[in-house]
Amino acid sequence: MENKLDLNRLCVHTQTTKPWDLETCIKEYSKAGIQHLSIWRHLLENQNLKEVRRTLQDHQLSVTSLVRGGFFTAVSQSDRKAAIEVNKKAIDEAEAIGAPLIVLVCGADPNQSLETSRAQIADGIHELLPYAKAANVKLAIEPLHPMYAADKSAVVSLAQANDIAEQLNHPFVGIAIDVYHLWWDNQLEQEIERCGKNNSIFAFHVCDWLSPTTDMLNDRGLMGEGTIPVKQIRNWVEQAGFQGPIEVEIFSERLWKKNQTAFLNEIKEAYIQHT
Amino acid sequence: MENKLDLNRLCVHTQTTKPWDLETCIKEYSKAGIQHLSIWRHLLENQNLKEVRRTLQDHQLSVTSLVRGGFFTAVSQSDRKAAIEVNKKAIDEAEAIGAPLIVLVCGADPNQSLETSRAQIADGIHELLPYAKAANVKLAIEPLHPMYAADKSAVVSLAQANDIAEQLNHPFVGIAIDVYHLWWDNQLEQEIERCGKNNSIFAFHVCDWLSPTTDMLNDRGLMGEGTIPVKQIRNWVEQAGFQGPIEVEIFSERLWKKNQTAFLNEIKEAYIQHT
Repeated sequence: MENKLDLNRLCVHTQTTKPWDLETCIKEYSKAGIQHLSIWRHLLENQNLKEVRRTLQDHQLSVTSLVRGGFFTAVSQSDRKAAIEVNKKAIDEAEAIGAPLIVLVCGADPNQSLETSRAQIADGIHELLPYAKAANVKLAIEPLHPMYAADKSAVVSLAQANDIAEQLNHPFVGIAIDVYHLWWDNQLEQEIERCGKNNSIFAFHVCDWLSPTTDMLNDRGLMGEGTIPVKQIRNWVEQAGFQGPIEVEIFSERLWKKNQTAFLNEIKEAYIQHT
Repeated sequence: MENKLDLNRLCVHTQTTKPWDLETCIKEYSKAGIQHLSIWRHLLENQNLKEVRRTLQDHQLSVTSLVRGGFFTAVSQSDRKAAIEVNKKAIDEAEAIGAPLIVLVCGADPNQSLETSRAQIADGIHELLPYAKAANVKLAIEPLHPMYAADKSAVVSLAQANDIAEQLNHPFVGIAIDVYHLWWDNQLEQEIERCGKNNSIFAFHVCDWLSPTTDMLNDRGLMGEGTIPVKQIRNWVEQAGFQGPIEVEIFSERLWKKNQTAFLNEIKEAYIQHT
């Protein structure tokens, strides 16, 4: 049904197959002909990172990104300093496993204004950049859907992410464009173009928006199941110069209940048909 | 704790006290010193509208708006024509009870693109405007939160609503600004200013965004319970020239479970303290 060439750019997030541990993800993705993965940090706890790196190489799997850093916002300065340390540890981990990029969920705090949070985010990334550069690990701001503005990310549009990236103006900071978070925005095409002109498109994430969506976190759809014009957005991203992996990042209680090997086949089909 | 003057501009949506029927809303709002209400259409079913109008007058209650018209989008043309007829009926009802305004939830259809839906929305409003003008009933586009883009409203930012209102450029079409839907937008202040310059701020709705929000429809908060800078947004709206009623529109399973008379007192307090 597909050949290996079709899957050349397919990347799967380990959280997409949440029931699997890291070892199973690596074996199963490899067996399925997948060549890229993004690794969620909790799977690296109590792991020997050199061995993880070797296992990935043995399975010819390339790490697209480590997910996720960020959460720079807090009312107290000591909490914000602690967040910088957590991010440095994430950078260390990314370097150790050979991940060239960390995706940032930037944070928000319901006890302060969005403007304050946005300023803290820019400050936090600014402070991290020398450390990231020394480790040769890039940082991608991921604007989230506005429904997460209160507590997960004060950055809720590509325009805002572009503003921050332009303000920081550093080759190690760019943006992760996720169709789930941004599809509703009628400025999306022009902001993707702007992002591309800045060489700031560091990652591209796909899934779908179900109608109705029954849960704000874990009811994403597989590409083709929902309302997002994934192919159109991919086309905009590629017109803007992006040629990296297409990352499938789906959180879904419904899909996690499936046999995950069968689900991985559905992902490959959906990637070929609807992405 | 409050005097009647403080409440001069307070308006309550009947859906905020959903457990009450229309008669109870009218009696209880009036007893509480509330002078404005917005009426949800389902409460008018099987009612004698002339009597409703008289009862409102007897209780010195002024109707701010009838909620809601809209839902202009559909793949089939016959469905779109049917929607126009439903909206004409809503306009008739508004005229009958003396409501000067209908709030439009504009619609979206998961089986077509957002661009198509937005064009259908502009066409639908355009078609309705002569009928609305003849009835002396204005129409307010309500941009909804982007989490409703798939199935409730393809208009999900004040910028988009301003675009459509400017395109239609008619004194009977304007905008309902609801803090719940728009608070996350860093363009909000400037778009409110633009809206005011066009004399397009037809309504202003308040409530709060809870963190965490546990339900995408019915987990809104009372002003002061959440993260929205309600006073700041009210200030922007008033700086832009709006001096109409401040409409409390809260859908909340949690708050609907309370004694609604006690809840109405909390609304008055929250209006005075946090709005």
